[in-house]
Amino acid sequence: MNKYHGKSTTVLKPRTTKEVSEIVKWCNDRRIGIVPQGGNTGLVGGSVPVKDELILSLANMSKVRAFDDVSGILVADAGCILQSLSDYLAPHNYVFPLDLGAKGSCQVGGNVSTNAGGLRLLRYGSLHGTVLGLEVVLPDGTILDQLTALRKDNTGYDLKQLFIGAEGTLGIVTGVSILTAPAPQALNNVMLALPKFDNVLPLFKEVKRQLSEILSAFEYIDRSVYDLAVKHNQGRALDAEEVEGAECFVLVETSGGNREHDEQKLNNLLESLMEADEPLINTGVLATSPAQFASLWAIREGLTEAVSKEGKAYKYDISVPLQKFQEVLDITREHLKSKGLMREGAVRHVVGYGHVGDGKSGNLHLNVVADAYTPEIEAALEPFVYELVAKYKGSVSAEHGIGVMKTHALQYSKNAVSIDWMKRIKQLFDPKGIMNPGKVLP
Amino acid sequence: MNKYHGKSTTVLKPRTTKEVSEIVKWCNDRRIGIVPQGGNTGLVGGSVPVKDELILSLANMSKVRAFDDVSGILVADAGCILQSLSDYLAPHNYVFPLDLGAKGSCQVGGNVSTNAGGLRLLRYGSLHGTVLGLEVVLPDGTILDQLTALRKDNTGYDLKQLFIGAEGTLGIVTGVSILTAPAPQALNNVMLALPKFDNVLPLFKEVKRQLSEILSAFEYIDRSVYDLAVKHNQGRALDAEEVEGAECFVLVETSGGNREHDEQKLNNLLESLMEADEPLINTGVLATSPAQFASLWAIREGLTEAVSKEGKAYKYDISVPLQKFQEVLDITREHLKSKGLMREGAVRHVVGYGHVGDGKSGNLHLNVVADAYTPEIEAALEPFVYELVAKYKGSVSAEHGIGVMKTHALQYSKNAVSIDWMKRIKQLFDPKGIMNPGKVLP
Repeated sequence: MNKYHGKSTTVLKPRTTKEVSEIVKWCNDRRIGIVPQGGNTGLVGGSVPVKDELILSLANMSKVRAFDDVSGILVADAGCILQSLSDYLAPHNYVFPLDLGAKGSCQVGGNVSTNAGGLRLLRYGSLHGTVLGLEVVLPDGTILDQLTALRKDNTGYDLKQLFIGAEGTLGIVTGVSILTAPAPQALNNVMLALPKFDNVLPLFKEVKRQLSEILSAFEYIDRSVYDLAVKHNQGRALDAEEVEGAECFVLVETSGGNREHDEQKLNNLLESLMEADEPLINTGVLATSPAQFASLWAIREGLTEAVSKEGKAYKYDISVPLQKFQEVLDITREHLKSKGLMREGAVRHVVGYGHVGDGKSGNLHLNVVADAYTPEIEAALEPFVYELVAKYKGSVSAEHGIGVMKTHALQYSKNAVSIDWMKRIKQLFDPKGIMNPGKVLP
Repeated sequence: MNKYHGKSTTVLKPRTTKEVSEIVKWCNDRRIGIVPQGGNTGLVGGSVPVKDELILSLANMSKVRAFDDVSGILVADAGCILQSLSDYLAPHNYVFPLDLGAKGSCQVGGNVSTNAGGLRLLRYGSLHGTVLGLEVVLPDGTILDQLTALRKDNTGYDLKQLFIGAEGTLGIVTGVSILTAPAPQALNNVMLALPKFDNVLPLFKEVKRQLSEILSAFEYIDRSVYDLAVKHNQGRALDAEEVEGAECFVLVETSGGNREHDEQKLNNLLESLMEADEPLINTGVLATSPAQFASLWAIREGLTEAVSKEGKAYKYDISVPLQKFQEVLDITREHLKSKGLMREGAVRHVVGYGHVGDGKSGNLHLNVVADAYTPEIEAALEPFVYELVAKYKGSVSAEHGIGVMKTHALQYSKNAVSIDWMKRIKQLFDPKGIMNPGKVLP
């Protein structure tokens, strides 16, 4: 949204953990605020100064420290760019357990600090499970070295977990040890057109049952955002007549160790879905070439861009129960209508897409596309959307974090006791409040 | 080892979280120590009082609170027994992401508090990844409700992680929300005999490459402990002539969604291993029936019992680099020999087995089997074994935790900064020191 601009004049780019430690200690002694900055690709203003803080960029700390090709454990500087780590792992036949649209510029330290989720979460789990160790410079300059390369170490409190998702407010992540995964030998995908939203859940159950351990993505795309993708040339998965009557779409991906077995499982799935007495899907397109595989993903990955081309988007990255995806879209649309804002010159579309695979409460990217950002629309949307999320016991930030943008909304996802204890933890680690001030906590 | 006996006279068995809260508040006001107790199956004395603490048993909190069969998310009272949760999940076609020898009596709250690893870690990852939320009664009686059933919630510090592995020293876990896994449709296993230890790592790489996502266990068994298992009738996987010349054994398990595919992968693996120019294995036995599958596992699971039948065992549950498994056994044996303790009437065997699948630093169960526990043997073993672990940058407790037994050994796995911050966290949550006193921290 290009919404946050800082006024910092100083950017430091240390080359070693020791240099980071010295800078932090110097700042702490003088109560100077610090904003740790990775690739600066965050979506909630977490890496942008709010006043005149010093920016500490990790860009010059970008070396792989160690890799073990038996275990797949990688130890890297925090400033390593995600794509470069993927490239590093490829010849070893391993993949990074995280994939993001921003992979060309985001850094692994930032990924850890924002607890990035992304497209591979269904298969490889969250960073709380895959990160094995961290090296962190604490607000007083102390280096907390928990950069173990052990998959199992059960000796006391797992302090590193606090820094995963803390968005740099408790310390600066300078090194990461992470468990990477054997590269899948085969990737396949299929785009399914569904006659109605109500079929999504039964379809998810059936797909999980049949594809089991090779299922790596189950992405929901509502009809209106699919149409935007087609309109703005982000790709076209199905013919016009195949799209007819579809209320939504699902992109299913598999990744496994044996191409023949995986294709057989996927073919069996499609056959059984089409031949059912009351089919859950209208039709499905199975990618039969790497080019087609890429083009199916291009639609999903192009949704953000399609939305941006259509207008100004209010983006909400929320967790709500799967059953409620459509309801959230409908209720939001109705609400905007009741405010007289669903019209030309104001809001054009309320669209949604997301990761169904992420469990009971899927991750819905709710986008409200308007002609311009206006105070009226913002007032109509907030706290309305957050209250809706709270009603469903969801999360106001499934993936993107809190940053500076959502500190006021934290209360809708976290109860008072939790927020109180977050404040105590912050106070314990950063009594002078120098570390990424104004972020996460209100 | 039956080593720890408390002197408590009071055991309370509350039925609700509110009752737990009231008891804890009452104790906190009076500075009365509390030992939270689950199934009391821990191996390091974590649930045993050291003085006259009150024992708070979770045994009467044993209800499943919710289960969603689309996402597989289970919410349960902390006192639910692991086996009963497995039984609950079975008709829904889900499995608990953790399996342990003690499953018949251990409780899920205790599993979380000890960060139990167990036999399914390779496949489903650690509890830090699978536990989605916790309900915890803090030392002042406050109920911290973070019992979310969201797979993705990125709103601030992930406080629940602190209680995973804290062994009840920061609060009492009363409820657990956890992601369970779709039940595999097919389970297969194979026992492999290796001519030499040096083949274990290349074999692990090859097995990972070929079995990929269906590999669910890779267990190392050294020759001497295998022989003990046979001697004490824990099972016999291979004929006498097949065992000849084997320096160690590996048990490989697969679990997957399609029996035919899985068997084909396993057959291909065995064929390629046997037909190699320089075979990594002497021979291998593939289970062809559920009975045979169970009997191969019976050997692995019977090792602990075989060791107990043979004598008094000093047990070390350590993480060291895979390459060093054999070296740790050899060095320990040599060391005992140099002390004149490798003889009848003192130490009979130094044996090892463990989970190779757990990454670079595998989890070695090092067992020193003696005729009796004696001060001489103990003095010869400690801190010798811990120093050895520290030399390899390993962990003095891969799975079992610290409890009361290993507080003095914490320093060999955690640096001074880490221990200092653990103490600060303890002080923050439990300033009066009432919660499981004497455990984890020295």
